[in-house]
Amino acid sequence: MRIHIQNPPDDPHFEITEAQWAEALARNPGMGPMEVSFARDDAGFARAIPEAEVVLTWTRQLRARFPKGALPGLAPRLRVIAITSAGLDPAAPFDWLPDSVALLNNRGTHADKAGEYGIMAILMLHTRMPAFADQQRRGEWKPLFSSTLEGRTVVVVGVGSLGGGIARRARAFGMRVVGVRNGADPHPDCDETHPNEALEAVLPRAEFLVLACPLTERTRNLLSRERIARLPRGARVVNVARGPVWDQEAVLDALDSGQLEGCVTDVAVPEPLPPDHRLWRTPGMVVTPHISADDVLRYNDRTLDILMENLRALRDGRPLPNRVDPSRGY
Amino acid sequence: MRIHIQNPPDDPHFEITEAQWAEALARNPGMGPMEVSFARDDAGFARAIPEAEVVLTWTRQLRARFPKGALPGLAPRLRVIAITSAGLDPAAPFDWLPDSVALLNNRGTHADKAGEYGIMAILMLHTRMPAFADQQRRGEWKPLFSSTLEGRTVVVVGVGSLGGGIARRARAFGMRVVGVRNGADPHPDCDETHPNEALEAVLPRAEFLVLACPLTERTRNLLSRERIARLPRGARVVNVARGPVWDQEAVLDALDSGQLEGCVTDVAVPEPLPPDHRLWRTPGMVVTPHISADDVLRYNDRTLDILMENLRALRDGRPLPNRVDPSRGY
Repeated sequence: MRIHIQNPPDDPHFEITEAQWAEALARNPGMGPMEVSFARDDAGFARAIPEAEVVLTWTRQLRARFPKGALPGLAPRLRVIAITSAGLDPAAPFDWLPDSVALLNNRGTHADKAGEYGIMAILMLHTRMPAFADQQRRGEWKPLFSSTLEGRTVVVVGVGSLGGGIARRARAFGMRVVGVRNGADPHPDCDETHPNEALEAVLPRAEFLVLACPLTERTRNLLSRERIARLPRGARVVNVARGPVWDQEAVLDALDSGQLEGCVTDVAVPEPLPPDHRLWRTPGMVVTPHISADDVLRYNDRTLDILMENLRALRDGRPLPNRVDPSRGY
Repeated sequence: MRIHIQNPPDDPHFEITEAQWAEALARNPGMGPMEVSFARDDAGFARAIPEAEVVLTWTRQLRARFPKGALPGLAPRLRVIAITSAGLDPAAPFDWLPDSVALLNNRGTHADKAGEYGIMAILMLHTRMPAFADQQRRGEWKPLFSSTLEGRTVVVVGVGSLGGGIARRARAFGMRVVGVRNGADPHPDCDETHPNEALEAVLPRAEFLVLACPLTERTRNLLSRERIARLPRGARVVNVARGPVWDQEAVLDALDSGQLEGCVTDVAVPEPLPPDHRLWRTPGMVVTPHISADDVLRYNDRTLDILMENLRALRDGRPLPNRVDPSRGY
């Protein structure tokens, strides 16, 4: 099988190396004969793509690499495009993707790291760290007390890889975890699960709200100004999804008014956020630069293990575990 | 038995109320006949103390309430002084305390809350939140990546109630927990325990160092400038003990030089910290105002449960579980 790995041109942290590939093969014996090529530039991509059966690449490159109508002509043997992120939204709409090519995302890579980030964010909000950060800027020593997380309710919107990792950690701290997802299948780390349609009904119970869903046309503006008003006063929100999943201006207004007590966000509109943006300066808001789910030590190894698991399924004629449905957007 | 509860004059958060006392009695049946008085002021103290057998009060009040030589004359029937904090250091030296009076601390009240604070602090340091806080102040969007806590080593100095609570949480995240304590008794939440004398030897392994010991003459300046130099470069430190347990100026110098990557401290010298103090402004330092172990919802209930457990032991002639040894300081 011919695999091509197209790395981003300038990201030394997450470039997949030949050594990592060799280690992945050693961890995954019996993969059968494979030829692999690596490139960072356009020339390397152009050289590899006519023969490639599998391409592993970054989501942001997809629409530029495969303009609408270019497939299957550009890569007649291509059967699989695997992307290194969980979210597909930078590649939407999927008018460029023929049915003959399976699109795989990288879900499963992010759960542990996202779980740690998520529970850190919840603990910070519970302990009133945004207020203490403001006090530290002012040099003000004023105790504000809190209790423990036990028995507090967290609503997690999206209990896939990211949200599931956070739910698992929250349960370990004795929180009541309410999952909101497509359908209402129970989730092993949620005390209750509700379908998306029930979101309005559970919001008034959300002492903590975690946004961990993919960005699709259905989830854009999911946490709208109206829904923020349905949260209990002083609620706290964590966003590890995408900036457009909430109404960013409405969130900042709600922090200013006290409807929200604090937020931790790993995403913003736009990214990178310009230096003078209001999001940086609104009291109660903690901003991190889109790092919540990327485990720098283990990311590439997990990415390659997931790819190999899917290639085994392809070889054996089984459904590909990470295949996504572009019409749903995840 | 005659109990007197002397509340602080102006702390509504932690004032023990008659209702809380009644609830505690309901949770602890069979305590036998007890008369209880409550006061916040000097007059109430003076009225109650000649007949009191047990006093529950705040540590900071002790030396003023019981000047050297005043006991036993001031309170001839007094058998127990129970304090509402874990640390005794504000009451030292103990030249005012006769052997006829048992001093109880409040250990056991703080473990859960301190555990949550401690793991929050470790997660924040691991995720590089101090650097992100600096970037947020500057409006700078620059990703810095990290891995997960699994397999990282944390050295916890003092594995009593606070340090034990933190060790338990750290283990749940897969960390290797190295406890340092008096003696070297194994601790159920530590992978290894070492006696205090081995501190020098374990410091080079401390990716994370948590100070959770009492302040005594032996632990004053425990994290000295010389010992900071024995930590691995880029180490991270959490202080939930007392400000004088570390050399505060040396810690700030080490943050400036990069020897330490980040610190979270809940204590300072002095408290409250003045607005212009260097501790507020040193990059890499996160400061909270002495709130890490005080669970505002459950503190008083736990305090009273611990008191009643000790009073049952007193009645039955058993050793008092929370009795402290003033010569050790904890």
